[in-house]
Amino acid sequence: MHGASALQGLKVLDFTRVYSGPYCTMLLADLGAEVIKVEAVGRGDDTRSFYPIKNGQSGYFTYLNRSKKSVTLNLKSQEGRRAAMELAQWADVVVENFSAGTIAKLGLGYEAVKKVNPEVIYASISGFGQSGPYSRKAAYDAVAQAMGGMTYLTGYPDAAPVKVGPAISDAATGVHTVVAILAALHYREKTGRGQYIDIAMLDTVFSMLENSVPIMTMLGENPQRIGNANPGSAPYNMYRTADGMVVIATANDSLFRRLAGVMGRPDLPDDPRFSTNPSRKAHEKEIDAIVEQWTQRHSTAEVERLLDEVGVPVAAARSVEQLVEDPQLLHREMIVEHEVPGVGWVKFPANPLRLQLTPPDPSRRAPELGEHTAEILSAVLHYSDAQIQQMRENQAI
Amino acid sequence: MHGASALQGLKVLDFTRVYSGPYCTMLLADLGAEVIKVEAVGRGDDTRSFYPIKNGQSGYFTYLNRSKKSVTLNLKSQEGRRAAMELAQWADVVVENFSAGTIAKLGLGYEAVKKVNPEVIYASISGFGQSGPYSRKAAYDAVAQAMGGMTYLTGYPDAAPVKVGPAISDAATGVHTVVAILAALHYREKTGRGQYIDIAMLDTVFSMLENSVPIMTMLGENPQRIGNANPGSAPYNMYRTADGMVVIATANDSLFRRLAGVMGRPDLPDDPRFSTNPSRKAHEKEIDAIVEQWTQRHSTAEVERLLDEVGVPVAAARSVEQLVEDPQLLHREMIVEHEVPGVGWVKFPANPLRLQLTPPDPSRRAPELGEHTAEILSAVLHYSDAQIQQMRENQAI
Repeated sequence: MHGASALQGLKVLDFTRVYSGPYCTMLLADLGAEVIKVEAVGRGDDTRSFYPIKNGQSGYFTYLNRSKKSVTLNLKSQEGRRAAMELAQWADVVVENFSAGTIAKLGLGYEAVKKVNPEVIYASISGFGQSGPYSRKAAYDAVAQAMGGMTYLTGYPDAAPVKVGPAISDAATGVHTVVAILAALHYREKTGRGQYIDIAMLDTVFSMLENSVPIMTMLGENPQRIGNANPGSAPYNMYRTADGMVVIATANDSLFRRLAGVMGRPDLPDDPRFSTNPSRKAHEKEIDAIVEQWTQRHSTAEVERLLDEVGVPVAAARSVEQLVEDPQLLHREMIVEHEVPGVGWVKFPANPLRLQLTPPDPSRRAPELGEHTAEILSAVLHYSDAQIQQMRENQAI
Repeated sequence: MHGASALQGLKVLDFTRVYSGPYCTMLLADLGAEVIKVEAVGRGDDTRSFYPIKNGQSGYFTYLNRSKKSVTLNLKSQEGRRAAMELAQWADVVVENFSAGTIAKLGLGYEAVKKVNPEVIYASISGFGQSGPYSRKAAYDAVAQAMGGMTYLTGYPDAAPVKVGPAISDAATGVHTVVAILAALHYREKTGRGQYIDIAMLDTVFSMLENSVPIMTMLGENPQRIGNANPGSAPYNMYRTADGMVVIATANDSLFRRLAGVMGRPDLPDDPRFSTNPSRKAHEKEIDAIVEQWTQRHSTAEVERLLDEVGVPVAAARSVEQLVEDPQLLHREMIVEHEVPGVGWVKFPANPLRLQLTPPDPSRRAPELGEHTAEILSAVLHYSDAQIQQMRENQAI
């Protein structure tokens, strides 16, 4: 069904594990790059044992590692490292997300790879960057969110801060890394020069705080968490309905006029407390109460229907159970099914990058551990069957 | 201070407003692309009046529109549309985030632009995509988060769902769009063929739900919000300390052994309730209580110091006030200062894409409304001074 791929011919050597790196290389692989994922012998990526697990297969791993090939290499053995270095020589792009400094100790850092592959684009992803006071600090998503300011800013004002449910700092760092890699690739095509890329989860989270930094630096106000409200606009919140809750978001006067009209309160925009966005924000509790008096008299579906009709942003918070049957996501082909070995057909999110001429292809299931080891060593590195057999006996693969 | 730029020479025509599109074109501009932002005459981007405001300047706008040039065009006038179409002919890349269908009605949609610029890469960003049952639905970040599942999954189990504080769906959609544009650019360089790109906030949010979709599709469990906990690992939560709260995140047995050692409880990993990650998750309340008994006897700083020493992921939720003085962010040069006209020097987040050879340059302040109108019409479109004067009189610019 798929035609040309945007990144066809691009060769990627993937030392990444868990989420940030695998999301990065998944996007590259869906777009047509040949991604060879190097995994530890016998064990593989940590996420092969991450929740959810069914019949020994992890849905975590299988979502994030589709479209890739798995090669097991023991990077603590000389043979394993030699094969890894030969693959690094073959690659256009190398990506890794070990803790800072680890891959250099294995002899596979940028400086070492550059000697055999001067044009390589080499991207390192880490929690805090490759140098600086926190560079050795251990990072998981919850730590990156907390250190980067996302957690402090999320939640209700009268409760403790709360992290974003899904590991947003990992996915966001992964996709930012793809941007850096493709920009470097563009530069290499113009000049023949490769380079090193150093992406930190901390930097990425800090870059995604919307207006929070200028609120601090321009006004001297340290922004606080405000639940479902908006620091600059009102009414913009989550409201109780007759049977649940609904998000209504107005950030300009025109939307507010439409909302007031639907509520049967065309007088509100003429009230000086509510006539402009800043004045509504200054009287937020009053306008939120008026909106909620109205929403509580209707079902969530009714509020959605009435406001959709006039183009006021409105939504219920939908669960994953609803999403996997959602008509818009189905229309967008945002659900892909893979036949997971030993499990059967399982639905996953497809790829959100809709390039009309070169659509991404998320249809190839994630590899089993080492599924492509012999194939790659033979076809890419031209190892003989005897060599491969010997490496297996030495537990190097 | 800055040398070569990765995207030097790339010409981008930017019809975007608010956040998702401007974040996309800011990344392109920082990386060296020439970005011409088209704004409405007299009014400009909505965010020019968004909070925070000081001396008439919006920190929202100035953060997200650095490195760009501002040209005002009245797209409802024939002269304005003609100039816009000539700029579209000049551009390698066009980006827009009007509601679906709007720009085509203005005569500046992909099909129209392609006629004068067959190789153009043309990216549309919208809430729900250019077609399908929700394509006309109005979207703000709070709506995209709710519709895409992020809100339902964020917050404490005993409270209402809560959106991510900052408008994460906008930033995430913006950076995904950059990936699509750069992949299309790579393809165009190989084949000479441009294409259309259609990115939806809904698709992007749905793609960033981590393991939530496979939890539903593999196990039949509809994932619920769980505060600062992790669906598959324990102890992984936020804990009370003697003077605040701290995040501790262990997702494998090795990290748990180290945590138990620091707590003076080397017996815990041998307890069958706590010996493996699944068993700890099954006894999460018990292990969380044991961890909190320990954290409550120490200050947050002390818990951080003790766990950092042994490489266990740990962090306090830091506020923006702390972040703008943070030694690691300063070391990473993640704070840039701009001289905002009429305001003075203001700090903003810099660019997180650390390309060693072609570092992004976030140092050029955001443009004032129409600051580059005459310059661009003259230098790029070769309009005469008289023509430009006439357009001004006609309120076309």
